[in-house]
Amino acid sequence: MTPARTLAYARLHRWRFLADLVRFVRLPSVSAQPKHANDVKRCAGWLSRHLKKVGLERVRVIPTRRHPVIYAEWLHAPGLPTILVYGHYDVQPPDPLSEWISPPFQPAVRGDNLYGRGACDDKGQLFTHVKAIESYLRVAGRLPVNVKCLFEGEEEIGSPNLTGFIERNRRVLAANFAVMSDTRMLGPNCPSLTYSVRGQLGLEIEVRGPRHDLHSGNFGGAIHDPLQVLCEMIARLHDGNGRVAIPGFYDRVRRSTEKEREFMQRSGPSDRQILQDAETETGWGERGYSLYERVTVRPTLTINGISGGYEGVGGKAVIPSRALAKLSFRLVPDQDPFEIETLFRRYIARIIPPTAKVIVRTNQLANPAVIDRRHPALAAAALAYRKAFGKIPVFLRSGGSIPVVSTFQRVLAIPTVLMGFALPDDRIHAPNEKFHLPNFYRGIETCIWFMSEISGKATVSAPVPIVQKVKPMKASWL
Amino acid sequence: MTPARTLAYARLHRWRFLADLVRFVRLPSVSAQPKHANDVKRCAGWLSRHLKKVGLERVRVIPTRRHPVIYAEWLHAPGLPTILVYGHYDVQPPDPLSEWISPPFQPAVRGDNLYGRGACDDKGQLFTHVKAIESYLRVAGRLPVNVKCLFEGEEEIGSPNLTGFIERNRRVLAANFAVMSDTRMLGPNCPSLTYSVRGQLGLEIEVRGPRHDLHSGNFGGAIHDPLQVLCEMIARLHDGNGRVAIPGFYDRVRRSTEKEREFMQRSGPSDRQILQDAETETGWGERGYSLYERVTVRPTLTINGISGGYEGVGGKAVIPSRALAKLSFRLVPDQDPFEIETLFRRYIARIIPPTAKVIVRTNQLANPAVIDRRHPALAAAALAYRKAFGKIPVFLRSGGSIPVVSTFQRVLAIPTVLMGFALPDDRIHAPNEKFHLPNFYRGIETCIWFMSEISGKATVSAPVPIVQKVKPMKASWL
Repeated sequence: MTPARTLAYARLHRWRFLADLVRFVRLPSVSAQPKHANDVKRCAGWLSRHLKKVGLERVRVIPTRRHPVIYAEWLHAPGLPTILVYGHYDVQPPDPLSEWISPPFQPAVRGDNLYGRGACDDKGQLFTHVKAIESYLRVAGRLPVNVKCLFEGEEEIGSPNLTGFIERNRRVLAANFAVMSDTRMLGPNCPSLTYSVRGQLGLEIEVRGPRHDLHSGNFGGAIHDPLQVLCEMIARLHDGNGRVAIPGFYDRVRRSTEKEREFMQRSGPSDRQILQDAETETGWGERGYSLYERVTVRPTLTINGISGGYEGVGGKAVIPSRALAKLSFRLVPDQDPFEIETLFRRYIARIIPPTAKVIVRTNQLANPAVIDRRHPALAAAALAYRKAFGKIPVFLRSGGSIPVVSTFQRVLAIPTVLMGFALPDDRIHAPNEKFHLPNFYRGIETCIWFMSEISGKATVSAPVPIVQKVKPMKASWL
Repeated sequence: MTPARTLAYARLHRWRFLADLVRFVRLPSVSAQPKHANDVKRCAGWLSRHLKKVGLERVRVIPTRRHPVIYAEWLHAPGLPTILVYGHYDVQPPDPLSEWISPPFQPAVRGDNLYGRGACDDKGQLFTHVKAIESYLRVAGRLPVNVKCLFEGEEEIGSPNLTGFIERNRRVLAANFAVMSDTRMLGPNCPSLTYSVRGQLGLEIEVRGPRHDLHSGNFGGAIHDPLQVLCEMIARLHDGNGRVAIPGFYDRVRRSTEKEREFMQRSGPSDRQILQDAETETGWGERGYSLYERVTVRPTLTINGISGGYEGVGGKAVIPSRALAKLSFRLVPDQDPFEIETLFRRYIARIIPPTAKVIVRTNQLANPAVIDRRHPALAAAALAYRKAFGKIPVFLRSGGSIPVVSTFQRVLAIPTVLMGFALPDDRIHAPNEKFHLPNFYRGIETCIWFMSEISGKATVSAPVPIVQKVKPMKASWL
């Protein structure tokens, strides 16, 4: 059964779908900025009302310690698979405002694009699922599968309350797999399905020296400069071969099979493509691996920022009292961010010179996740892309991290289909963010086809969860 | 002959001297800020008129490319020594303004102190000489020595035009020695005479990586992080013994004699005192030397500032496109800052990894200088302190740099007597700068005694200049 009438409805209502998206983007749901806290709430209210209008049931706005989570469902397809649709309705701060051609919260269509903060990340992509659901419910009064929606308002601030929420509501959220649209395609005509994301461990190292900044003339040579200490410690985090020098760091790294390496070489970007994307001439890193492997199946450590001392024009004779570095590890299966954190802290404690104090703070922890490429849900997604875009998507690994993927895996024991519609030039997190409207419309059609394909599958098996460290379940909010 | 009447005059007029200083401090001669350029000029005009009123002759305000130099003289003591009095009438920016108890350019007397930007550095200290001269000229109609005054308006911005000025006016500025008051005493009752300053070489290293900041998830592991490159290069600037690792760096360092080391140990601060001043517990540095030696007779390298990547709250997944460090060497006789600059650039070129570009910029160069402790002018200064403060000053080496000292030595072939009246808690360069008024008055008396003592010396010999790289003399401005 093809969803011909549903697709026709979606095509007919493109302009209204866009008008609805414009209303959604107009709400400045900036989760990071306290001055927008009320706007986030208003946005949650608007979205929940919209979900009701669309025909979803049991729509709830559930407060958390900061920004609310939205839940909605439609469960009238007994015996058929259940999909958990994830998305986020909060957005990045729009700064620097002066660089926007049109105001970030006054969405504007120019050419084939809708400009506005959140147009692509993630309001527009979240809406592809909502509008696919709407199309089905309006045309047939029913969906081809069971659907649960989980839309959060804290993704851009690291989802501080989501894991707890999922843990507390395991039973309510139970599904065969999750699907989300918050990743990139390779280009306007190159759909891609992401099947692995790296984990993350974000840290800060603060080196403390003298109580106050000192004059480097008067004290230079007698007091250990915290910036020097910091540099010398950071220099000991890598060896000469581009590998992380922390003992035990690679112990749990899963080795790729020859078959997987071959697949990656065939389907993934070449070294040249990666360097082109980075707009640089020379690669770097661990020997024996392609650049694509280095950024996906190999773990890494980057220094994201350092500050300390005088940073203005010219020079200033100062030994700063403190120096700060921000670091992040990207981790791969089967590394555990908690274990790596311990190894890191142990190593730092070993290399601290006796002349300085060092404080390590952990900002972020996320598990790596890999989804079996042969999972039937991915096959269904691939087919859906082919129908909507006319092209089979490439299966790619991502070097980035999407913490919720491993949370779904760990707590709900389900894989996530990463079905993204963003383009590399959509300027996510940057001024003049946009959503390519042909991708909005084809995205909706992909979601329509996806549900239809899933419905056709006899069963959609869920893999065994990787880790099972779940807190005892508390009363659900429903 | 004691200058009893001159001292009596100075005591009688203390309140007027203070009133004059208040007028001087009220002028916001901030040399670094273009918005104050006219105030610097007004200040130069005011000071030159004041010098005329005091009785100095041939008073000139000589424009430079930025802020004017002031010259004045009194040369009616044939056969007697000539003193070149140096000082600066420009001041540091007063920021942060909110931390001042009273506005920086509305001088206020509270307790024993005059508060205001420049009250101590260097308007108040410069004025001790001017008021000593005034006292002599009013009482006796003459000075006991010949005096030339050189007051610049660019000290706080690194004296960009002073060296050229001195070189072009060698003959006009010829003197037996220079004297300046722009250094510290150890405490209210511990006068000190500084007899050596270190040289300086201020540098910036910029590491350039990818053209734009990159997502550290997408590219981490495949692109060399400029911050990592910077840290690894900085870590190679010192060896494990706290010594600078640049080949040839120590080649020209003059070794202290056993006698000098003993003198320094006897007269200088102990390790404990230096750590107390630094408000820290543990020292660091080159083995085999006391902390006092490390900060005065040994050269050193400090990292004054590093910036790059994300420096805000929390973390951000970024590989920055560039990273910047500010470094400064402190040099000792007979190191040459130009030669050290070459050695540094050569070493950096050797350790740059092939995966990054590095740019080295030189901000500042100053020669080290040492004045013979047995120079008769220093003996006269010591005696003058004893008369005014009732205490023999300690002879100290300074770890800081006063570039004009080596310029006087090189171009005019004269030593400089560093006769400072600032206290450690005068908050030079910081908010609520102050001048301890008892030091203002005793400073004036010290200057009166100093001229009297110098007058009594049969001859004041000038040492042979250390370096003689003088550009051909151009026409003088007089």
